[in-house]
Amino acid sequence: MGKINKVNLMAKKRIEENEVFKSYFKNLTDRERAVFEGGITLGALFHQFVGTPVSLNSKETLEKAIEESMKNQPCVEDIEVKINGNFEDGKYLSLTGEMLDVRLKIKVNETTAILRLRYIEELDYPLMYVEEITS
Amino acid sequence: MGKINKVNLMAKKRIEENEVFKSYFKNLTDRERAVFEGGITLGALFHQFVGTPVSLNSKETLEKAIEESMKNQPCVEDIEVKINGNFEDGKYLSLTGEMLDVRLKIKVNETTAILRLRYIEELDYPLMYVEEITS
Amino acid sequence: MGKINKVNLMAKKRIEENEVFKSYFKNLTDRERAVFEGGITLGALFHQFVGTPVSLNSKETLEKAIEESMKNQPCVEDIEVKINGNFEDGKYLSLTGEMLDVRLKIKVNETTAILRLRYIEELDYPLMYVEEITS
Amino acid sequence: MGKINKVNLMAKKRIEENEVFKSYFKNLTDRERAVFEGGITLGALFHQFVGTPVSLNSKETLEKAIEESMKNQPCVEDIEVKINGNFEDGKYLSLTGEMLDVRLKIKVNETTAILRLRYIEELDYPLMYVEEITS
Repeated sequence: MGKINKVNLMAKKRIEENEVFKSYFKNLTDRERAVFEGGITLGALFHQFVGTPVSLNSKETLEKAIEESMKNQPCVEDIEVKINGNFEDGKYLSLTGEMLDVRLKIKVNETTAILRLRYIEELDYPLMYVEEITS
Repeated sequence: MGKINKVNLMAKKRIEENEVFKSYFKNLTDRERAVFEGGITLGALFHQFVGTPVSLNSKETLEKAIEESMKNQPCVEDIEVKINGNFEDGKYLSLTGEMLDVRLKIKVNETTAILRLRYIEELDYPLMYVEEITS
Repeated sequence: MGKINKVNLMAKKRIEENEVFKSYFKNLTDRERAVFEGGITLGALFHQFVGTPVSLNSKETLEKAIEESMKNQPCVEDIEVKINGNFEDGKYLSLTGEMLDVRLKIKVNETTAILRLRYIEELDYPLMYVEEITS
Repeated sequence: MGKINKVNLMAKKRIEENEVFKSYFKNLTDRERAVFEGGITLGALFHQFVGTPVSLNSKETLEKAIEESMKNQPCVEDIEVKINGNFEDGKYLSLTGEMLDVRLKIKVNETTAILRLRYIEELDYPLMYVEEITS
């Protein structure tokens, strides 16, 4: 029971649970808030990590670190990051947006949004969009 | 007239005018789309430029470059960036989120959103939020 | 044996073993080359990762990913990254240069350099310097 | 005369003029110090700005801001940044290392080093190297 309490306490300390923080979002519906926070996290992820040296050896560690760092962002419930690229043994690449395949789950009260960042060949562009949103 | 046509043509080439691009956003209202694109741009701005060396001498040039680069992002209508900091002569700082004061205008069809990134003392946190949204 | 050969082959493919690459560094002594490559990697590390959201939960994963990504850089023999910070449960910080404590080992032929990035209180500055160089 | 004094004073306040700062570099020759500081600045520049949205409209402002921000770094005497890219009207790109052409001048006492970051087609790699060093 002590453990459950502690976990609850920790959860409460996340900044998005703060009443002052919440007061800034009263003008948004839960859906709007979910896609706003999802947009922030996708933009943050792209512009924080693009340029990172990455190779076959370091790819998985980087995917994991991107996931774990982005879980700190407000309202992030889950995230999966996959780095695609034409890796050759011993060679490294500089991470680009085109190499990223991200699936991000945002939760605001009862609303859940699944957002994506992935390269769309038809557009030749790493697109950020909302794949699904349910409330 | 030739000039007007050329300007229109250029405007049409922006990626958000592309029909394939648009097809990914049919599940969002204009308001949702506006805050989604605004969130992306604020997250991008923060994580692209935090860490940049900045001094009294280089502050204005950096503010301008952040504004101009972010105007490239989809649906950005206008943006004002101000860098605050305790600058001393000859000393430089590493840009932090706390130093940024951003006012971003996003336009999606008839909907206009004003978004902010600014340090909120009460939260000790550089907050991204939607200041105003009208349709 | 097959495995040993494969490892050797991979090692040979690193870009710094390429003869064209090498030809650009004939004007430097091994010591100069070592501190040049060390400087690049410290500058890269700082400006790539500063701004990343980090908390008690994600700190170790990020330290590891910084190490593994920087091992891709030319002439990096080894690297240890420690993130210091006043982490509270449930709260996250944006990584700053002041939080980084890095020990980087560079090898160029028989020359080995140990470089550091760490916060120097007397300077109130995250300093990059060469701790030791031996040939 | 008052103005000259003031300028001198400002120059003296640069961190590389601080005696504590200097004490960390007694183990390096002026040439070693010059290439070390040059390496830091090239690594910093690449990893700070790669990923920035850039178009024909914003290219010059970004080049200027990269130059001005990097002039803050220790021992930087001058820097020229050119962004190359296949820009089309209305389209923007995400800045890559391959697009950067940088010429950096570092000065340590009587030693001057010219360093470059530029794409070398033969290596398919944005190479950082020392073009010239004189003392």
